[in-house]
Amino acid sequence: MENAKPKTTPAAPIRTAEILCVGTELLLGDIVNTNAAFLSRRLAGMGISVYHQAVVGDHPGRLTQALEEAYAGHGRPAAQLVILSGGLGPTYDDLTKETVASFFGRDMMLHAESLARIKSYFGKLGRCMSCNNEKQAMMPQGAVVFPNDYGTAPALAVSDGERTAILLPGPPSELEPLFDRQVRPWLSQFTDGVLISRNIHIMGMGEADVEAKLCDLMVSSTNPTLAPYCKEGEVRLRVTARADSEAQATALCDRLVEAVQSSEVGPFIYGVDVENVESALVQTLTRLGLTIACAESCTGGMLGERITSVPGASAVFAGGCITYTNRMKVEQLGVSQATIDRYTEVSAETAAEMAVGVRRVCHTDLALSTTGYAGPGGGTPEHPVGTVFVGIASDHGVRTLKLSYAAGKTRDYIRRAAASRAFLEAIREVMPDNDSQ
Amino acid sequence: MENAKPKTTPAAPIRTAEILCVGTELLLGDIVNTNAAFLSRRLAGMGISVYHQAVVGDHPGRLTQALEEAYAGHGRPAAQLVILSGGLGPTYDDLTKETVASFFGRDMMLHAESLARIKSYFGKLGRCMSCNNEKQAMMPQGAVVFPNDYGTAPALAVSDGERTAILLPGPPSELEPLFDRQVRPWLSQFTDGVLISRNIHIMGMGEADVEAKLCDLMVSSTNPTLAPYCKEGEVRLRVTARADSEAQATALCDRLVEAVQSSEVGPFIYGVDVENVESALVQTLTRLGLTIACAESCTGGMLGERITSVPGASAVFAGGCITYTNRMKVEQLGVSQATIDRYTEVSAETAAEMAVGVRRVCHTDLALSTTGYAGPGGGTPEHPVGTVFVGIASDHGVRTLKLSYAAGKTRDYIRRAAASRAFLEAIREVMPDNDSQ
Repeated sequence: MENAKPKTTPAAPIRTAEILCVGTELLLGDIVNTNAAFLSRRLAGMGISVYHQAVVGDHPGRLTQALEEAYAGHGRPAAQLVILSGGLGPTYDDLTKETVASFFGRDMMLHAESLARIKSYFGKLGRCMSCNNEKQAMMPQGAVVFPNDYGTAPALAVSDGERTAILLPGPPSELEPLFDRQVRPWLSQFTDGVLISRNIHIMGMGEADVEAKLCDLMVSSTNPTLAPYCKEGEVRLRVTARADSEAQATALCDRLVEAVQSSEVGPFIYGVDVENVESALVQTLTRLGLTIACAESCTGGMLGERITSVPGASAVFAGGCITYTNRMKVEQLGVSQATIDRYTEVSAETAAEMAVGVRRVCHTDLALSTTGYAGPGGGTPEHPVGTVFVGIASDHGVRTLKLSYAAGKTRDYIRRAAASRAFLEAIREVMPDNDSQ
Repeated sequence: MENAKPKTTPAAPIRTAEILCVGTELLLGDIVNTNAAFLSRRLAGMGISVYHQAVVGDHPGRLTQALEEAYAGHGRPAAQLVILSGGLGPTYDDLTKETVASFFGRDMMLHAESLARIKSYFGKLGRCMSCNNEKQAMMPQGAVVFPNDYGTAPALAVSDGERTAILLPGPPSELEPLFDRQVRPWLSQFTDGVLISRNIHIMGMGEADVEAKLCDLMVSSTNPTLAPYCKEGEVRLRVTARADSEAQATALCDRLVEAVQSSEVGPFIYGVDVENVESALVQTLTRLGLTIACAESCTGGMLGERITSVPGASAVFAGGCITYTNRMKVEQLGVSQATIDRYTEVSAETAAEMAVGVRRVCHTDLALSTTGYAGPGGGTPEHPVGTVFVGIASDHGVRTLKLSYAAGKTRDYIRRAAASRAFLEAIREVMPDNDSQ
């Protein structure tokens, strides 16, 4: 349907959406689809329900089919909004914009402002713009264009009132800030009601145990809902409430969070609404004005990397030593060669001396250490792959913890789970009542 | 269609598949869907084309609809195989197995062997099995069961000859080894032909530039195909060939890889078929018998974490110092206070002294250092957020590199891209001809 003066904004409040990610690299498994998770999380926060996510190739026919299915809803609620990511690049196989334009019966027109921005972007980088970047400045007639400060492809929205499509560039480093700073404010004009979620973080208890202890609460809770999910060595409970106002939704959530906190699961909760356990640690240490250092063997720098991934970590993190070899453990941390000879480098004794050593070297209140067999090689009959010793040193002295992960867990899983557990122990060290929210 | 003695193995060679991931946590964006990427990569390697990936909630109706669409093919080739992940857990909202059973008209029956395995799994962990774990031992009639050594939920395959479904547990730490060690060998009985892929890794050239220089080659190449994709600060080219034999497919790929190597893109290739740049570095240093250490400020341990994520890294990696504070830089690495006072801690001079210092401290052949502003806070007019200095020390002395990332790049992007570039410089340091494949 050709349309001279098309509607360009949604008519009805948007309550349902689908995520449609475009790219052969996704279908080939070359890259992991983080955009679907990011967009779904954001939409949930805006009270927009996502019932379906799909990935299709750079293929106009299949893309059109996916759009038709999304807006029609196949055995699921029809989507009022489809958010597409990818296929806005300069290359010949980037076809998303052109396909959506023809789906909505719009012509493509050169968007002068976008062209100017793309040129200046390349100017800033001191790189010259290859002519096929101009393709990125072509826009469907009547589209709302969101300038991209983080790359060359602008985001855009196309709507005929009933159906709305938002197109975002594929790279997460562009998609995420573009959505948060430009698309979200625009989209929020067309939503109603609010969905509030709170996340309860649990460590030291399996999903089946958590669910067994909370089964009645889960089944009986409809608004808010209570849903468990696993994440490397921890269980999270998501509490989600829908209401007309944020205050109402928050009140609904809070009551259920308190019910969980006072349940048998309570003692295993390390945080509520924390990004992750490293954020909980940085928040806790910042509040208490304490500093921390790490001595890492099997985690090889992951403790430091994860702590410093939290903005503001510099307030609490001094640094640390990655002592992958025994010589480094002795020279850098003052671990005694006799301890290594007698107990080996993977032992509670070595972990303890590593933690004490790095705390002294870095002049911190607290120190963590890790030494273990993350596999695939290594391990002993006494300490097979999956064995990790964690040391925690503070004014109270030093204590150690032996972690054993099931055979078959990957190197990455063992390292991530051991690091998470180390962070939890650091929180417990400074907050014995374990109330870290 | 009720069926007393159902067919349980695929009749025709399987050439098309879809990935169907089940879980409300995916639709809410609580977790990133790494399973779709893993399974797609594996299927591509088996010559099975994936035209569609979808995520649906734990909802029998929508799951059934998604299965019908996949096997029917909506504007895309019909799938002979659907691989489902998730929803096999012990909790009341895990419904995948039951839904697939009724889709294929099969009854659920207790699988005694699985029940025994689940019991012994909990025994090994010294945890007691909650009764709802028994649900995980119920199987559709005629299913092929793949025992799970990595968790409680077995994988299974259901087929009526025409249509085949493979069900895997959601946690990647279970799904990945289960697929590789048990499902893949079974599935490979029902495939034909081979698809071989080679990956060319490029750094220091943008996607648009790469594509401009290789446009003719990309358009003219149909088998093998040549497709670019971006990944944090680098561009990759995937070469994929289909043939009857592995030898034929490999020969097709090799010719195209050589064509790219001898093109203008050649000098920017750091590796072919390497997992990533840290693997390329570990391989290169192992081959040359060289060792490396790292001094990290803004990357906070990421260099060490990524190097040690490569199995066998202990042959080349001694360790390093995470010197997040200036005091640590001075005390641990011997950076002179005068240098910091005069040039600040984010400077080529400081990066150089950090690299030289950690090389001395760790007694290695090579050393890398990083210092910069990863944001969101920090930065100066002269060195805004996105500025990172990398130091490379070796027998040849020390050199530094100033990296500048565009405004708006995230903290994680800046840290990852700077680390990747540091690894590339380390490879170049020991292989001036940059021939690292």
